[in-house]
Amino acid sequence: MNITAIEYEDSIIVVDCGLSFPDDEMLGIDLVIPDVTYLKENIDKVKGFVITHGHEDHIGALPYILKDINVPIYATRLTVGIIENKLKEHNLLKNTKRKVIKYGQSINLGCFRIEFVRTNHSIADAAALAIYTPAGVIFHTGDFKIDYTPVFGSPIDLQRIGEIGKKGVLALLCDSTNSERPGYTMSESSVGKTFDNIFADYAKQRIIVATFASNVDRVQQIINSAEKFGRKVVIEGRSMVNIITTAIDLGYIRMPENMLIDVEMMKNYTDDQLVLITTGSQGEAMAALSRIAAAIHRKVSIKPGDVVILSSTPIPGNEKAVSKVINELSMRGAKVIYQDTHVSGHACQEEIKLMYSLVKPKYAIPVHGEYRHKMRHAEIAQLMGVPKDNIFLINSGDVLTLSQEKGKVTGEVPAGGILVDGLGIGDVGNIVLRDRQHLSENGLIIVVVSLEKYTNNIMAGPDIVSRGFVYVKESENLMEEARVVVEKALEKCLSRNNTEWGKIKSEIKDSLSDYIWKKTKRNPMILPIIMEV
Amino acid sequence: MNITAIEYEDSIIVVDCGLSFPDDEMLGIDLVIPDVTYLKENIDKVKGFVITHGHEDHIGALPYILKDINVPIYATRLTVGIIENKLKEHNLLKNTKRKVIKYGQSINLGCFRIEFVRTNHSIADAAALAIYTPAGVIFHTGDFKIDYTPVFGSPIDLQRIGEIGKKGVLALLCDSTNSERPGYTMSESSVGKTFDNIFADYAKQRIIVATFASNVDRVQQIINSAEKFGRKVVIEGRSMVNIITTAIDLGYIRMPENMLIDVEMMKNYTDDQLVLITTGSQGEAMAALSRIAAAIHRKVSIKPGDVVILSSTPIPGNEKAVSKVINELSMRGAKVIYQDTHVSGHACQEEIKLMYSLVKPKYAIPVHGEYRHKMRHAEIAQLMGVPKDNIFLINSGDVLTLSQEKGKVTGEVPAGGILVDGLGIGDVGNIVLRDRQHLSENGLIIVVVSLEKYTNNIMAGPDIVSRGFVYVKESENLMEEARVVVEKALEKCLSRNNTEWGKIKSEIKDSLSDYIWKKTKRNPMILPIIMEV
Repeated sequence: MNITAIEYEDSIIVVDCGLSFPDDEMLGIDLVIPDVTYLKENIDKVKGFVITHGHEDHIGALPYILKDINVPIYATRLTVGIIENKLKEHNLLKNTKRKVIKYGQSINLGCFRIEFVRTNHSIADAAALAIYTPAGVIFHTGDFKIDYTPVFGSPIDLQRIGEIGKKGVLALLCDSTNSERPGYTMSESSVGKTFDNIFADYAKQRIIVATFASNVDRVQQIINSAEKFGRKVVIEGRSMVNIITTAIDLGYIRMPENMLIDVEMMKNYTDDQLVLITTGSQGEAMAALSRIAAAIHRKVSIKPGDVVILSSTPIPGNEKAVSKVINELSMRGAKVIYQDTHVSGHACQEEIKLMYSLVKPKYAIPVHGEYRHKMRHAEIAQLMGVPKDNIFLINSGDVLTLSQEKGKVTGEVPAGGILVDGLGIGDVGNIVLRDRQHLSENGLIIVVVSLEKYTNNIMAGPDIVSRGFVYVKESENLMEEARVVVEKALEKCLSRNNTEWGKIKSEIKDSLSDYIWKKTKRNPMILPIIMEV
Repeated sequence: MNITAIEYEDSIIVVDCGLSFPDDEMLGIDLVIPDVTYLKENIDKVKGFVITHGHEDHIGALPYILKDINVPIYATRLTVGIIENKLKEHNLLKNTKRKVIKYGQSINLGCFRIEFVRTNHSIADAAALAIYTPAGVIFHTGDFKIDYTPVFGSPIDLQRIGEIGKKGVLALLCDSTNSERPGYTMSESSVGKTFDNIFADYAKQRIIVATFASNVDRVQQIINSAEKFGRKVVIEGRSMVNIITTAIDLGYIRMPENMLIDVEMMKNYTDDQLVLITTGSQGEAMAALSRIAAAIHRKVSIKPGDVVILSSTPIPGNEKAVSKVINELSMRGAKVIYQDTHVSGHACQEEIKLMYSLVKPKYAIPVHGEYRHKMRHAEIAQLMGVPKDNIFLINSGDVLTLSQEKGKVTGEVPAGGILVDGLGIGDVGNIVLRDRQHLSENGLIIVVVSLEKYTNNIMAGPDIVSRGFVYVKESENLMEEARVVVEKALEKCLSRNNTEWGKIKSEIKDSLSDYIWKKTKRNPMILPIIMEV
């Protein structure tokens, strides 16, 4: 959920506008977008979004945020293409200004000048941003790695970064993702060699490769291997079809003529003539590969001998889901390959050091990563000569004020995540999540009783209904005894003329909850409902 | 959840009796135990449990299963000690027979003779079992690794395994956990060197080490480093205190005199005089380290400069929880170390090959691991000369019949997991879990209405109550409109004299569910309740 506002007097620019995926405890939530209250309150100052690259965690919140912050979007060509796909889906294409910026080109927004600098990442057209402000230059790397032999385009523009650094940079905001990993990240093109080897080893088998939809260079390399070994290519999975189509249209993927075939056409080819490229390398339940593995995909089914390449490393939290897919594919007789079939898109320690050597900033602000990664990054920055006091480990919402003289966290703005559930944006908060958590672990018991108006005589009930608690047929005794407990609680209240509903409800709740705990050591949600008839 | 029954005519012995921890989708479940229907039905044949080692996934279900299958337990000394702890907690000590068996010793159970053979693992006193049956010898490795320099006791008894193999082994059941990893697993004692280095590097700081409660050799090495560097030892976390106390009592841990102090005494010592050994290395929410990291531990709080060693690798599925703990500790200023501080307790590929070289079984039955691990193990077995048709990738519940002539899966017995939730064993099944899943993702809406007997006039309601759906205060309109939708559905039914409750309920459910989906793209559980007054 990357988003950074840079403000000077009456100008604000916003770097990136990403979403994040829900944590395990955010039950039922589809996605999380940033809180942009501060931008809304200062909408007159906001000059535009400058976007570093086309990954969901850098662009995904745009369709939601644009409704409130409708300012122009500036990005490189492929990034704009991917954003346009999103805008189309949300019917926002017509009302959103966007502009393609080339590497080396600068734009002026308010008092800022922003230069887009070529970098490498696991998606083409990634850019770092040199932001020229009246207070000095801010250099934002975005997500980056240093790839001397990229699959598409040129290596990161180290010369220009050196030149910018030489003239003096106030602050460096640099990617921390791989700051715990020593050494260098391998070149993307090293994966192509692995693909060639696998295609050679399994020349007779059908090959299925799963990878990230957005990794167009990875897909290009699969296409290259397919071309060498005379295979047709099938692309499966909605997000992959979307991005790859855009990448082909814009010339970021070279697809030989007559090579791409529709999934329906697979039956006309033999196994050794086919490679299927698909989403689902992270074990996402609804993605194509997971459905193929579970044998619920309508068009593709695994047969013994198929070779499945997982061309990605599980993102923390996805390990079990990925393992499940590997097990299912294995059980259906597929050979699953997942070693040396992926490289990271992020800079390791030596690359981060190189970035500091070129930029030599006055202030270091580690970004993109968990706290542990930013902390390790801070150690690297210190090693590279940035004084400890000039390194800022800031949190979401912190306002960091920088000048040539000093840097200081001077305030805070609202910054939490806004939960998106279905069409609702922000209507699921902590209370709702806490209830979902409670329900998920213990289920619920509903007690309904009808009381007569004025007299408070019991007219019907108490009836007890439960869901997610126990299988009632096997626990009839328990439920019957629970009813007796509730009856006694009711009698107790009513006999004492204790007829305030709040009191009756809490008496029912307390006594039933005690009884259930004693009998089962469980703690279901108890919901007493009183009707007045 | 390891458990294997071996049967010949009227004799059955059971190897291990483990539990497993719930999968993510087993909402609210505490633990899972094996279905032993087959053993219950053949209780007269069952001669005893023979246990390979004292880990939860090999002994944890005993207290639950013993209630039905009350036969003697045979295991090595530490294993029996740990089992006795469990029996005490469950009040089963008095009624359970158990016997300590030494390495090299054999016992006779029915027609079987079982010899306990020394192995190495991440808990002391691990044993392989040579089971002499009228049909031939079955060799079961249990969980094992080959450690030439173990911390406690002697290396695995490779000589005896060779001797048993030389005489002829019918079937080898061998650990598959690390079958995907090439090479050898490092010796446990290599971790001791890392500890010494860390203790030397951080001589002034307080050191906290988190590891598995059951890894007594690991704890011994921490104690050794503490002794060298003149630190007192505090042990924190209930399961660790239990196991370590047992290990000290039985002589499996050498604790120098006056070295172990109570957590309350920590305040009398300076940072450089202390090491705290604790549970929670897997990020388990209720374990000591997680509570310390979250600053909700009553007795220990992190201060800047503290050094925390995570002496374990995250088990798949726990990565995010571990990362959360690392982030929290880092934010409180602790230095967190987790590299080279752990070795596995399971055999890698070369060790598995060595086992096959010594045992040279007729049949190979890969055990202990997911399908992907067993499949890789099968490839190794084949490489080591076991014919493909003699390798059995069997599933839980499969009945494999072996003779010198042939091996074949000849049947199936009930084998799924029985879910334990609080005191309930097996009363939470698929329906309850499905409800919990539904509730967890979408929450619920309850509709209550009172109808008059005979006339079916609406006497009260419809009232709508929701939990885990939306924050009602912010969605008053939605809920009010929902009430109108329900009223219309009711009127429709009643006006047509469609007064069967089932029909009324499904009409309410369908119309409300349509309305809610249209408005929110959400799918809460809808629970119509009708009261007759």
